[in-house]
Parts: sequence; C-alpha cells; structure tokens
Amino acid sequence: PDLRGLSFENTFGGATSFLRRSYNKVLRSVDLAVTGVPFDQATSHRPGTRLGPRALREASSLQPCYPPYGWGFDPLTEFDIIDYGDLAFDFARIQDFPETLRAHIATILGAGAGTLVLGGDHYITLPILRAYAAKFGPLSVIQFDAHSDLWPDDDPARIDHGTMMYKAVREGLVAPETSVQVGIRTECADYLGLSVIDAFEVHDIGPKAVAAKLHEIVGRTPCYLSFDIDALDPAFAPGTGTPVWNGLTPNQVAVILRQLSGVNMKGGDVVEVSPGHDPTGVTAIMGAHVGMELICLYCRGLQEKGGA
Amino acid sequence: PDLRGLSFENTFGGATSFLRRSYNKVLRSVDLAVTGVPFDQATSHRPGTRLGPRALREASSLQPCYPPYGWGFDPLTEFDIIDYGDLAFDFARIQDFPETLRAHIATILGAGAGTLVLGGDHYITLPILRAYAAKFGPLSVIQFDAHSDLWPDDDPARIDHGTMMYKAVREGLVAPETSVQVGIRTECADYLGLSVIDAFEVHDIGPKAVAAKLHEIVGRTPCYLSFDIDALDPAFAPGTGTPVWNGLTPNQVAVILRQLSGVNMKGGDVVEVSPGHDPTGVTAIMGAHVGMELICLYCRGLQEKGGA
Amino acid sequence: PDLRGLSFENTFGGATSFLRRSYNKVLRSVDLAVTGVPFDQATSHRPGTRLGPRALREASSLQPCYPPYGWGFDPLTEFDIIDYGDLAFDFARIQDFPETLRAHIATILGAGAGTLVLGGDHYITLPILRAYAAKFGPLSVIQFDAHSDLWPDDDPARIDHGTMMYKAVREGLVAPETSVQVGIRTECADYLGLSVIDAFEVHDIGPKAVAAKLHEIVGRTPCYLSFDIDALDPAFAPGTGTPVWNGLTPNQVAVILRQLSGVNMKGGDVVEVSPGHDPTGVTAIMGAHVGMELICLYCRGLQEKGGA
Amino acid sequence: PDLRGLSFENTFGGATSFLRRSYNKVLRSVDLAVTGVPFDQATSHRPGTRLGPRALREASSLQPCYPPYGWGFDPLTEFDIIDYGDLAFDFARIQDFPETLRAHIATILGAGAGTLVLGGDHYITLPILRAYAAKFGPLSVIQFDAHSDLWPDDDPARIDHGTMMYKAVREGLVAPETSVQVGIRTECADYLGLSVIDAFEVHDIGPKAVAAKLHEIVGRTPCYLSFDIDALDPAFAPGTGTPVWNGLTPNQVAVILRQLSGVNMKGGDVVEVSPGHDPTGVTAIMGAHVGMELICLYCRGLQEKGGA
Amino acid sequence: PDLRGLSFENTFGGATSFLRRSYNKVLRSVDLAVTGVPFDQATSHRPGTRLGPRALREASSLQPCYPPYGWGFDPLTEFDIIDYGDLAFDFARIQDFPETLRAHIATILGAGAGTLVLGGDHYITLPILRAYAAKFGPLSVIQFDAHSDLWPDDDPARIDHGTMMYKAVREGLVAPETSVQVGIRTECADYLGLSVIDAFEVHDIGPKAVAAKLHEIVGRTPCYLSFDIDALDPAFAPGTGTPVWNGLTPNQVAVILRQLSGVNMKGGDVVEVSPGHDPTGVTAIMGAHVGMELICLYCRGLQEKGGA
Amino acid sequence: PDLRGLSFENTFGGATSFLRRSYNKVLRSVDLAVTGVPFDQATSHRPGTRLGPRALREASSLQPCYPPYGWGFDPLTEFDIIDYGDLAFDFARIQDFPETLRAHIATILGAGAGTLVLGGDHYITLPILRAYAAKFGPLSVIQFDAHSDLWPDDDPARIDHGTMMYKAVREGLVAPETSVQVGIRTECADYLGLSVIDAFEVHDIGPKAVAAKLHEIVGRTPCYLSFDIDALDPAFAPGTGTPVWNGLTPNQVAVILRQLSGVNMKGGDVVEVSPGHDPTGVTAIMGAHVGMELICLYCRGLQEKGGA
Ligand SMILES: [Mn+2]
Ligand SMILES: [Mn+2]
Ligand SMILES: [Mn+2]
Ligand SMILES: [Mn+2]
Ligand SMILES: [Mn+2]
Ligand SMILES: [Mn+2]
Ligand SMILES: [Mn+2]
Ligand SMILES: [Mn+2]
Ligand SMILES: [Mn+2]
Ligand SMILES: [Mn+2]
Ligand SMILES: [Mn+2]
Ligand SMILES: [Mn+2]
Repeated sequence: PDLRGLSFENTFGGATSFLRRSYNKVLRSVDLAVTGVPFDQATSHRPGTRLGPRALREASSLQPCYPPYGWGFDPLTEFDIIDYGDLAFDFARIQDFPETLRAHIATILGAGAGTLVLGGDHYITLPILRAYAAKFGPLSVIQFDAHSDLWPDDDPARIDHGTMMYKAVREGLVAPETSVQVGIRTECADYLGLSVIDAFEVHDIGPKAVAAKLHEIVGRTPCYLSFDIDALDPAFAPGTGTPVWNGLTPNQVAVILRQLSGVNMKGGDVVEVSPGHDPTGVTAIMGAHVGMELICLYCRGLQEKGGA
Repeated sequence: PDLRGLSFENTFGGATSFLRRSYNKVLRSVDLAVTGVPFDQATSHRPGTRLGPRALREASSLQPCYPPYGWGFDPLTEFDIIDYGDLAFDFARIQDFPETLRAHIATILGAGAGTLVLGGDHYITLPILRAYAAKFGPLSVIQFDAHSDLWPDDDPARIDHGTMMYKAVREGLVAPETSVQVGIRTECADYLGLSVIDAFEVHDIGPKAVAAKLHEIVGRTPCYLSFDIDALDPAFAPGTGTPVWNGLTPNQVAVILRQLSGVNMKGGDVVEVSPGHDPTGVTAIMGAHVGMELICLYCRGLQEKGGA
Repeated sequence: PDLRGLSFENTFGGATSFLRRSYNKVLRSVDLAVTGVPFDQATSHRPGTRLGPRALREASSLQPCYPPYGWGFDPLTEFDIIDYGDLAFDFARIQDFPETLRAHIATILGAGAGTLVLGGDHYITLPILRAYAAKFGPLSVIQFDAHSDLWPDDDPARIDHGTMMYKAVREGLVAPETSVQVGIRTECADYLGLSVIDAFEVHDIGPKAVAAKLHEIVGRTPCYLSFDIDALDPAFAPGTGTPVWNGLTPNQVAVILRQLSGVNMKGGDVVEVSPGHDPTGVTAIMGAHVGMELICLYCRGLQEKGGA
Repeated sequence: PDLRGLSFENTFGGATSFLRRSYNKVLRSVDLAVTGVPFDQATSHRPGTRLGPRALREASSLQPCYPPYGWGFDPLTEFDIIDYGDLAFDFARIQDFPETLRAHIATILGAGAGTLVLGGDHYITLPILRAYAAKFGPLSVIQFDAHSDLWPDDDPARIDHGTMMYKAVREGLVAPETSVQVGIRTECADYLGLSVIDAFEVHDIGPKAVAAKLHEIVGRTPCYLSFDIDALDPAFAPGTGTPVWNGLTPNQVAVILRQLSGVNMKGGDVVEVSPGHDPTGVTAIMGAHVGMELICLYCRGLQEKGGA
Repeated sequence: PDLRGLSFENTFGGATSFLRRSYNKVLRSVDLAVTGVPFDQATSHRPGTRLGPRALREASSLQPCYPPYGWGFDPLTEFDIIDYGDLAFDFARIQDFPETLRAHIATILGAGAGTLVLGGDHYITLPILRAYAAKFGPLSVIQFDAHSDLWPDDDPARIDHGTMMYKAVREGLVAPETSVQVGIRTECADYLGLSVIDAFEVHDIGPKAVAAKLHEIVGRTPCYLSFDIDALDPAFAPGTGTPVWNGLTPNQVAVILRQLSGVNMKGGDVVEVSPGHDPTGVTAIMGAHVGMELICLYCRGLQEKGGA
Repeated sequence: PDLRGLSFENTFGGATSFLRRSYNKVLRSVDLAVTGVPFDQATSHRPGTRLGPRALREASSLQPCYPPYGWGFDPLTEFDIIDYGDLAFDFARIQDFPETLRAHIATILGAGAGTLVLGGDHYITLPILRAYAAKFGPLSVIQFDAHSDLWPDDDPARIDHGTMMYKAVREGLVAPETSVQVGIRTECADYLGLSVIDAFEVHDIGPKAVAAKLHEIVGRTPCYLSFDIDALDPAFAPGTGTPVWNGLTPNQVAVILRQLSGVNMKGGDVVEVSPGHDPTGVTAIMGAHVGMELICLYCRGLQEKGGA
C-alpha cells in the first residue's frame, strides 16, 4: 500500500489517526510506526494520561496540511509512517502490563520499523527501553522532563512513573555517560551518572547552546528521545499530572529539537499528556508538534543512511 | 470481511469509530453505514457542529461493551454496520455542498445500505432527504426538535439550518400528513400540514402516549427519523447551537424511541451536537445513545423483513 | 423613539442588550425597564454574580427570533420595553449600595415603568422592595428559591443575601399572608407567616397544582416575583452561589410561570446567576428564559388593564 | 473532644473536611467515621476518581449551614461523626491495595464506628464488604448503579470496578436474596440472585414505590448501601467514568433515600465521582448530598437503637 | 456628541462596547470606528470566530481605566472613537458576504474615519482591503500571523481564510515590496514578493530589531496592519482556529507594536479570536490589548498630521 | 508537637493544608504561620479570589515531595511551619473586616511567628501592613504587580484593592525610599516615592539585573514582600481579577525571587488568585510555587540569624 501523502479530508473531519497516517496493523516496509500506550496507572499525582493518545491524535490533524516548518523535507511524503493504533491491555491486571508493552514494541522493532510512542504516563518508557536495549544494546537517552524519574526503587513489583529511569539505568538499558536530562527543576539526590541541563541553565544559556551540549554528550551513539510534556512550563502544558513551574518554552523546545538534527535517533516518545487538565487543548497541541519533530529527527537519520 | 462483533480494545484507547465499527469505504453487503457530515456553515447562532461527528464517535466508545439495554438483541453482532467516515467537501465553496452531500448519501443507498448520519447542523437533512426521496418517494419524517425549521425561505441559494424543512416539504420530499415534529417549543406560523407534539404535551401526556400517537400518525409508511439534539433540554444537551429551555428529558426520549419499534424506518440522523459548548461531554453522550437507538430501530426493521 | 420590534442583527453579533431591546436611559413612555444590578458582595458562599447581568444579556440574544412560545402575543412588539443598563455604584463603599439601588428603582417606578431586575445576588431584592413598597404598599411576594432567606438578622448594617427577606418582612415591605416561597429545600425555623410550597411538594403535586395554589394565596393583590435561579436543580443551574440538590426542573418552572398568568404583577427579578460556575452556559439560558416569562406576565397584566 | 456542632468558619474558607467534621484519627467514642479512598486504578474507561474525595469534601462545605432538610434532626449535632481522612496506600503496588483497604475499614469497625466511604472507583466496595462481612456476616446490599458490576471474573488477581460485585457475591459477602440493584440500565446476563429495579422501572413507578419495594426486599436485615454516582443521569452527574443515559434524577434519589428510613444500615459509600469531567461541579454536589442522606439513614438507625 | 472620555460604569457592568466607546452608527466627525465582523464561515479547521467580536468587547472593559501604558497620551480622551457595532449579514447567503463587508468598510472610510475591525476569521481582510485600496491605492500590509495565507487559489467563488492574501496580492490591493509577514511558522511555497520575518527570527533577533526591520520595509507608505491572533503562541492564544506552536510572546508583540510608532497606518484588524477554545479568556484579553495598541498607532499618526 | 517533615499521604489524597503542613491553631514555637484570607469584596473587576486560599492549598500538594529546587535546604524539615487556617470573618459586615484581619496578623506576630498570607484580593495587604508596622515600624515593601495600587483615595471608609498601597504609604506603614514595585504595566500618576521596575524593563534587563536593583534599593531593611499574581502574564496566570498583558514569565519570577536571598524579609503574601477564571489550574500552581519561594526567603533569613 502507498502509505505516503495525504488523502483529501477536512482537518476537522473523520476519525483522527496521528498526522492522518494510515491506521493499520501491517508493518511490512514501514519506516516508523506511531503507537499509543494509553496507560496511566503508574501516576503519582493527577490522573488521566490514558486519554493522551486520543488527544494527541486529534490535535495533530492540522499539521499535515504543511510540511514541517524549516526542515526542508516532508517525512509524511518521503517515508512510510503508519499509525499502528494503541496497545490493548488488561487494565485490571497491571502486573502483566510491562511485559505486554515490551513485546508490543519488540514486534515493531522486529519488523524493522522504529517507534514513536504516544503516552500514557512516563512509566511506559521502561518497557520500551527493554525492547530497544534488546535490539540496540544500552542506549543514550535524551530525556526532556521536569523530573529525573530517578528515585531509588529496588522493588521490581512497583510500577511507578517516578522511578522508571532508576530501574532503566540499574537494568543496564541506559548508557549513563552519553545520556542527559533537560529541563530538570525538582531535586534528585543521585543522577546515576547521567548529565543534567536543568531549567535554569536552559533559560540562562539559550536553546542553541543547549543543543550544542547535547550533541557533545550524545555524539553519534544510538539514542532514544523521551519527551515528558511537563518539561514545558505549566502555562504551555497544563494538561499533565505533575506540573512544576519555571519550565521550558515552546521556542526553546522547538530550537533544541531542530538543532538536534544529526543525532542517531532510534525511537522516541511523548508522554504525560493528560487531557482532563487541558481544557484549552494547548498541551495536546504542544505534544503533537513535539511528535512531528521527533519524526523529522528520525527520518533525517534514515536519510543520512540513504533510507529515503 | 466480518464486520460484526468487537475486536479487543480498551474503551479509552485507539482512534474512535462510531460504536467501534469497522472504519472503511467498502459498502458491499453492508446493512447500515454510519457517516459523519461535519458541516456547520448553515448555523444561525452559536457555531461548532463541524466537530460533532468526532465528539459522537468518542462518546460512543463505551457503549459496545454491552448489547443495547432492553432491546433483546445486539445489532452490532447481528448486522453488518460500518463507520463509513466523514463526507469530505470544500468548506470554501459552500454552494457545492448540497449536491456533494446528496450524492454521498445516494452512493450509500445505491449500494443497498441504510444511513445513520452524524451532523453537523440540521441543514444537512435537506440533501439527505433528496437522496432518500429519489429512492423511496416522499417520506414520513419524525423530527425531534425544539424548532420546526419551517421558516419560509423560497430563495434556493440560501443554505440555512432553520428553513430546510420548509424546503423539504416544498420540494415534495416529505409526506406531511404522515410526518410529525416532537418537542417543539418555539413559535411557527405554519406547520405545512405536519403534525406536532410540542414539549408541553410530551411533559403532559408522558412518553408512552407520545409513542402511541407517533405510531398512529406514521403507521407503516417509509419514514426517516431526524433527531436535532436540541430537542433535549439544555441541561441535557448544552452543546448545541440554538438551545431552548423546557426540553425533553433523556428518559422521555429513551422511552419514545424504544416504543417506536415497529416503524418502517429507512434512515436517520443525529444533528446539532456542538462540542465547543459541551465541556462536560454530556451532549455527545446523549447523541451517541440516540444514535444507538436509531440503529436498533433500523435493524429491528430489517429483522421484521427477515434481514438477519 | 420606536422601542418595539427588532432591528436586523445576527444573533451572534453585536453588543448584547437584554432580548435586543433598545439600550438607553430614556424612560418616557416606557412600559418596562430591564436593568442589571451587578452586585455580589452580600454572597455567603461561591462568588461571582456580578457577572450575571452580562451573561443573561448574552444568553437572551436568541430568544427575540420568535414570539415567546405559547403566550399568544409578543411583548417585544406590543409593548415599550428597554434595557436601561446596569446600576453603577461604588463597589468599595458597600454601605451606600442599598440606598443607591433603592433610588435607582424609585426613579424607574416614578417614571411609570415597571422593572425587571437582572442580578446580582439576592440581597438586591431588599432595596428593590423598599422602592416598590413606597409606591404600592406592602407587596405579595412570590419567591422561587432553594432557601427562604429568612434567617434572623436584626443588625441593620449587615448586607447579606440570606437574611434580606427577614428584613423585608420586618420592615413591612411584604404582606406575609399573601406571599409564598416555592422550591424551598433548606431548613427554616420560622417562615414569618409566609406560605411555603417546598421542592418535595412541587415534585409531588406537579406544576399545575402548584400554580393553582399560588393563585389561591396571592389572588389579585399587587405582587412582586423574585426568582432565585437556585430554585432550579444544580444540573439545570450550576452557575449559582449556593446550589442545593433536588431542585425544580425547567418544565416545572415553565408551566408554573405560564399558569401564573392573571396575577397582578408589579415587577420582578432574576438573581443569583453566577457565570464563573457555568461553563456550559445553561444557567444563563435558564435565567434568560425566566426573564422572558416574567416580561410576559407583566405585559399580560398591562393588557388586562387595557395597556396595549 | 466535642465532635458535634460547628465552629464558625466561612463556607468558602479553610481546608475542607467532609461536612466540616473534625478531621482526625482518633476513633474513640465515634459513631461514624467518614473516610476517603482515593483509588482509581480499577477503572475501565475514563479516569480520575482518585480526586473524588477531595471534590466531595469541598462540595459539602455549604451543607452544614442547615440541618438536613426534612429529616427532623441534625446528625451533625446529635452524633459523633468525624472525617477520618483518606486511606494512604502505595499507588505503585496495586496488588497490596485490597488488603490495605480491608484493614483500614476493619480498624474503624473494630473501634465501634460505622463508615461512610468517599470513593474512588467502585472496586473499593469489595474490600470494604470483606471487612463488613467479617463483623456482620453476609450483608444485604442496596446498590444504586447504572451497572450491575456482576461481570464474571474468577481471576483473583484482577482488580476491576466492573466485576467486584460478582466477587463479593461469590465470596459470600453478600446475601443475594435480600440485596437489590437500583437504576440499572446496562445488560447483565446473570444477576446471581440479586433483585433489580432498573432505570425504566424507577421512572415508571416513581420513587415512593421504589422505596416500598426496597423495604420489602431488605427488611430489617443488616445492610450496606453503595451509591455509584452513575446511577444518576449524566446531566446530573457528568463527572464519572462510565456514564450511561436515562439515569435517575436527583428528586428520585432524594425521595428513595429519605423513604429508606428504617432500614438497618451498617455503612455505605459514594463512589465514582470523577472531578476531571465535572467542570460545573454538579456531580460533586450531588455526591455530597447523597453522603449526607446516608449519614442521616445511619444515625436514624442509631436513634432507633437508643444511640443518641 | 462628545465621544471622548468615560462615563462612570463599573468594569463588570453593562453591555460592553469596545473599550467602553459610544456604541452608535453616527459617523460624523469620527476619527476611528471600531466595528465587528462576526463572520467565521471561511474557516478551514476549528470553528467559532463569529463570537470573537463579543469576546473582544467584554475583555476590553478593564482597559479604559487607565491610559494605554507607556504611550504618553490617551487616544480615548483625545480622539473621537466609536464602536460602530457589528456588520449584519445573511449567514445563509455567503456569496453575498464579501461585497456586503466591502461596502460596510467603504461607508466608514467615505465618512473620513479609519477602521479597526474585530474578526471574525481572516478572510474578512480581503473585502476590507478592497475598500481600502479603492481609497488609498495598493497598501503596504503588515501581517502578524503563523500562516502566510498565500495558498494559491484562483477560484473567485472560494471564500477561504487561508488564501485571501493570495487574492489580495493578485488583485493588486497590496504593495508586496513594502509589505511584510511577521511570526510565520508554516511553510509557504511562494511569498509573492512580500518580506517575511518568521517566528524563529523574531525569537532570535528580539522585538526591537524586528520593529527596526519593519520600519525599513514599510517606511512612510500608507499601510494596513492585520493581526491574526495565531501569531501568538497557543499558550497565549489558545482560542483560535489553527494554532501552531513556537509563536510570539505578548512581550514581543507589545514591544514591536509600540516601536512601530511612526508608520503611516490607515487601518487595522484583530482576527481569528475563537472564544469556544478560550475557557480562560486569555486569547480575548490579548486581542483586546492588541486592539488598543492599533488604536494608539492610528491616533499617533493623526497627531503627527496635526489631527488632535 | 513535631511540625517538621511529612507524614505519608498520597499527593492526591486528603484534605489539603498548604504544603501539607500541620493544620492547627497552636502558635507556640512556630517559625512561620501560613494563613488564608478568603476576602474578595474589595475587587474592582472580575470576582472570585475568596476561593484563592483553597486553590493554593490544593495546588501545593505536589511540592513537598521534594525540597525546593536549588535552595540547598528544605524549610519544611528545618523549620516549624504551620497552616494556621483561614481568617473567619462576617462577610456581611465588611466595615469590620480590616480590623479583624489586622488583629489576626497581630496575634501571629505577637507569638513570634512570621506570616505568609494566601489571598484574597490585594486589599488585605493594608491591614496586614498595619500589624507589621506596629511591630517593625515602616517597612520596605517589594510589590510584584501589574498595578501600582496607588490610586489616590482619602476616604477611609472605602475598601478597595486598587488604593490600598496609597493608604499604606499615607498611613506611614511603608518606607517609600526603600520600597519598589516590579512588573508594573498600567499608568500611575504619582508613585509617592516608591521605585518602579516596570514590565518592559524586566523584559529588557533580565531577572538577574532586576534582583540586583532590588537588593540595592531594599538593602538590609526589614521588608515585606507582596506578590499580586497578576504580575505574571495572563497566559501564566489567567485566574485573576484584573489581568494585563505583557506580564512577567515564571522564569523571571523564579530567578528574581531566588536571587533575593539575603533580604531581611519579615513576611509576605500571595494575592489575587481567582480560581473561577483558572480552569487549567495553572494560576494556582504558579501561586503555590511563589508561596514556597517566599517561605525559603523567610527561612533563609532565620538561618542567617542562627534560627535553624
Ligand atoms: Mn517523567
Ligand atoms: Mn515529569
Ligand atoms: Mn433543527
Ligand atoms: Mn433545533
Ligand atoms: Mn437561594
Ligand atoms: Mn435567595
Ligand atoms: Mn458501579
Ligand atoms: Mn456504574
Ligand atoms: Mn491568517
Ligand atoms: Mn493564522
Ligand atoms: Mn495589586
Ligand atoms: Mn494587580
């Protein structure tokens, strides 16, 4: 099937797949599969990210009208990108969820496609990283977040969106020395070797300097980009579970992501969008734009390898 | 393809087709096609019904968990019902819209399926009736509405949600003597021969008596059921363009529709759901339930003809 | 000036006077002056009724499209009704407010017009009744309310929306034996001689029986009708300061008010609409409809006296 | 300490305990302990009931101004009722939650107090009933709900708000023949011996007849009253996870609960209030009123035993 | 009549004209007429700007309390500015709308007044420019926008808010070489000779440098300033139809507009404010402030010509 | 009692005291008492700040999970801080309010504790300053605000949130030469000797330079910090009564407050949070963060004096 381009449909019409991509379960010859993980049961504070994938899809419906601004190419017409739908899971047997999600991602990776995951709460990044590390070895992680999610938690049965990075590092899924957290503005006693560019520093040195530091840290190692929407200030992303003031601005994020072009990105996610606290819809709009930027970064990488 | 039953998916997950029906454009062997018409440019007061089909789909996602209460059968497992997607049209050439919609409906009817249309504003019923009348001749119309939509308007170029019934009657699409308007509570100088059961009467005689009167008026003539969500009181349906107090209650509507079982229904619509004025979502919930009842009425008719 | 009828204007356009009446300060030959009193500083619980008049005006813009349903005449075309604008007062000198309001109403009454006041919290009815009683003597009051507003309060300096009826009775502004409270569902130790038809009774006996009782109590005495929007159930009127469950329905209110035709009504008010708790707008819609019914009652009275 | 009566505080001021009761953990000589269970991880559809207890407390702050309407006594001044605060639990170890909750309730019962629980999703009633049955033996359950929550589920590890009544019956916590579900309007294949008064029947026979049937079924057996807020129609309770149309009205609920006076009630709960879908606040207002009625029923029972 | 200054009225009271200006249709001796155009039928995505003028008026009611900050003069007391009300048009005959609007503006210009138009969607700028160009010849346009609105569209019957600048240029209403678009962040294949300062550049060089570039491009040519509210970031202006991230900040806009003092401005508009997506009201607040700045720019120009 | 640290409670559970501090009325050995003043009757425009303290408490519940970011100490574990509850007052006798509030603050100061007040409208700062000046003499005031609140008002009976600083200066409660207003962007004819760093200047010179200027102005004099939430731009703080565009950003505020470390702060307040205009909750989140920073500044001062 031809997965590229756009069929004619009004932006306000129809069921909404992410960026109006074909919504199906066929992975053959797919470059990138967008998939939702509507899981919110690891949330410590305000609930509701299970409705995040739906909101991100709806918010994305305007974007395919134009190629992504300033990138000089259109991944939607040059690459085979599908909306693979949402992970189905038994919400009443949470203990099964991590393995269900890991297998879901492994299936996509096994078919040769990359993944862009729409969360759901940030816990989902742990099973995703398990699937990624099984294929790529320990990854460099670029995490945009107000929180390090590195709280110590050695209880394997706990499923917590605030401790999953701790577990990811401890399980050896992450290469700490080439990983970095951006936008942090809550205390963390031990960063376990990851680099940090906190929110004050982003505001201080500006987004271009941040991007330069990220390139220096990550280099050309295989990396995974996890974007917790609470990296943005609550005014730009009120619809999230654990908002913290003094966050990033959309322009800072747009510039940093654009300037990250050239990293060796293997996959990514946009998490913690919670529509119940987003009556203006701005959080989903931000998340949908971040999603498009991650697609551009991924496809740029494919281009560099001669992929399209 | 097997269009019946449900694949496993969480109610809160995935892109939302109406009642989780297969979302496609293949009409072969389809009993009933649900289709959205996100048109709101004929609206006289508060705007926004173009987002109605999307809201109705989302609100419907909980319902397929159970067979419709009290009907004794499940149309979703016994009949081939699809979500045919939304009509695409050029919003900037409104003059073309009526014919575009008529042809859209005619295509479905031509394939032997009935239609349940999700609006959009109430103007859409006029082009729909043109397609229906071309197939079935003048129809009995059962219209639930706060307004008669019978304002005189002999200008064929006007596209107005408040005059479309006038035009439908004048064009001979409607059989007035077997047609009826329910829930009216705004003045109308000339009902053009249609019967009226106004809101005061519904409250007075109760829903069972209303249903009995409807059967008496409509009999077994081929009929079309048009449900303007503003038939409900604004407390039950705030998300609409022209709300009027003293409307029907959900119980009145549920009982009337249930008791209509036995009418010879050829198609129907749910119109005037406007999500921008519906922050609680209750309007879309009501509309999605009405949609399910219309499906039950339609499929019950098929059963009576030996259709399933 | 010709104050009757409607100039052409879209329902969604323009600055909104109540029911699109002429917005001016000229009282000559006016039958009824609608005036807003955006005062909310006597509120005991949730704030915000100062924005009530504005919301009621906006919500009313759809209604003049039709004559009021079922009345058989249109007061907007048969009588001279203006929107006299809002009372201006110094919000920072609350002690002056009662006299400022009393004088405002006295000015209108002195010009021979009646008043329909848009509140504001319910305290405003006390200064209004002072002006009315000065002209008409003690009035029969028909009060729709969840609360009796009869809490004992002998401190003349207190300005409280929960004690103003106590003061009105004590000051001799009210004729208790021909006055009645409808929809009450909070305890009151002493009704000071007023009759009560509580919410349970309204639900029990139905609105027509309620109207009959009201006629029996009030007869043809000069009466004032005060409608606290919290008489309605919170589902129909969430935008109010002191909501109590088990309230009236719009149909009950519509029937009672319609059936009150024939009372000797001298004026009325719609109070306690608080837009900050009304995101669906339904409360203002209800209030605007009640306002129209009060206008009909008033003008019917004028007709009976040969006024139009 | 004197737990009765009210200290002076503005209704809009201060941290909000339920009905302004003393907020503490001392159970000595307490008649009834109100306690919140902010658990929402067993929810099948829309999330957010973990914020229910907080919303119910805030919505209740107006009620203590008056004795409960029509009861003829004030439980807040005649009985020792406290707000025992919320159950604390590890949201990341859901498997531990059922036992944590059971023990919490057992502690309160062990101190001789009854419980009114503020949910949280409806799963919580299962651990609560375990504690109750341990003390009282199998209980008669009066459940107000749109759903029977009787879906078969023999997997002890599943924690699901739609199957907990099935488990409660199977575990022998419930006496089916003296138990009853009111307001049901979703299909259920097997009611396991419980009686049902569905929503259509409530609308048909009216609340007084419903109450009479309930007395007949339950008699003077020890009973537990569980109120799922979705028993109400979505217009009256939009803030809930699984809304279904054609629900009960506040008046029906108010009359039924009032007329239940005389049942031998041992405890109760108000569950499924989800503030994220409740921008008008009406759902929490309804829930807070239901809570007060349950307190009245409980305390009336104590009075009959000579308790106050 | 004296059109200057303020009558005493509470900011929260009364029907709201823009900036509390006299609301009338008398154009004699008027310097500037503010007029609303509640037209939203050319919108490609989210609907609702027909309610924009009303929201802008309401949001403006606080501003006249003070002279505009930092300008050193008060146009409301030094110039004759009126609120001319909204254009009335037949929403059901959209094909007539362009000429109706052009004539409306031509009437005002013919009376010697300038116009500040409150939209409405951005299509309205095309008929406005027709009226302006008829008087002034081709104008320099300073357009703040996320979109160029230059999509090719040679179908004269299409009425589209995304192609009107294309038509304006093609019709010769615009002088491209002295025109400029600010804040662009969606792709455009051909700017037709207009200059562009895109959003990235604004963030990069800062607002003072932007203003300097604008002066350089526009010089002292007669210019028209069109402000699409989506020039602002969605966090600052969520209430709009086609929001795009990485937009301008209020401070950038405030500084640029202030520094534009000295341009030869003939008129302007504020468009695309859509209250249905603006529950916080912030979009309308921003739009009302922009409107005041445009008035200051216009009146400063009059001062320079000796006008006041 | 041990007032430090945290008891285990879910962030989403329980009644919410500010920052989960002990909620009581015992002032012995307390370092800082947080107290709410839910007074909003001096508001000139949009109402509703009486619900501010409640919203600030709820929004603060996430923050105690971590020490305040970047401060290097945790005041919640090192100092004795309580939530003293809200001032109770008779809302119907506003004339008594100023003295009631003054006495309330004087009681706390008399016990040796400092105060952080949660408003309420900005009028409350006047009675607070009366209590402070009685103890400390005229104070240096650092006021963050869009407005100077210096409008001339020599009427002692007026209670107005826009004139209270005028009165405070005239009463000698403020030392003008060491006082300063930050973020001003509305005109003021006479600053009465206070310094001003207006919003344009903050944007121009950046927050570190602002902090340096503040230190220079205030030095080590005893100072009071009053934070009107409208100092922030309306996008960051829509929930307020008199929003003005071009306000401060959260980062500017965070940096300025952090850099103020070293001032001799005696107390402070966060005022003008109005939840009715804050559907996203972002305003309360901002206010709760500002509150924490004020606590840090206060406790840092105690540390410098050897207090902890
Ligand atoms: Mn995270
Ligand atoms: Mn985070
Ligand atoms: Mn209709
Ligand atoms: Mn209608
Ligand atoms: Mn009341
Ligand atoms: Mn009242
Ligand atoms: Mn249930
Ligand atoms: Mn249920
Ligand atoms: Mn535009
Ligand atoms: Mn635009
Ligand atoms: Mn202030
Ligand atoms: Mn201020």
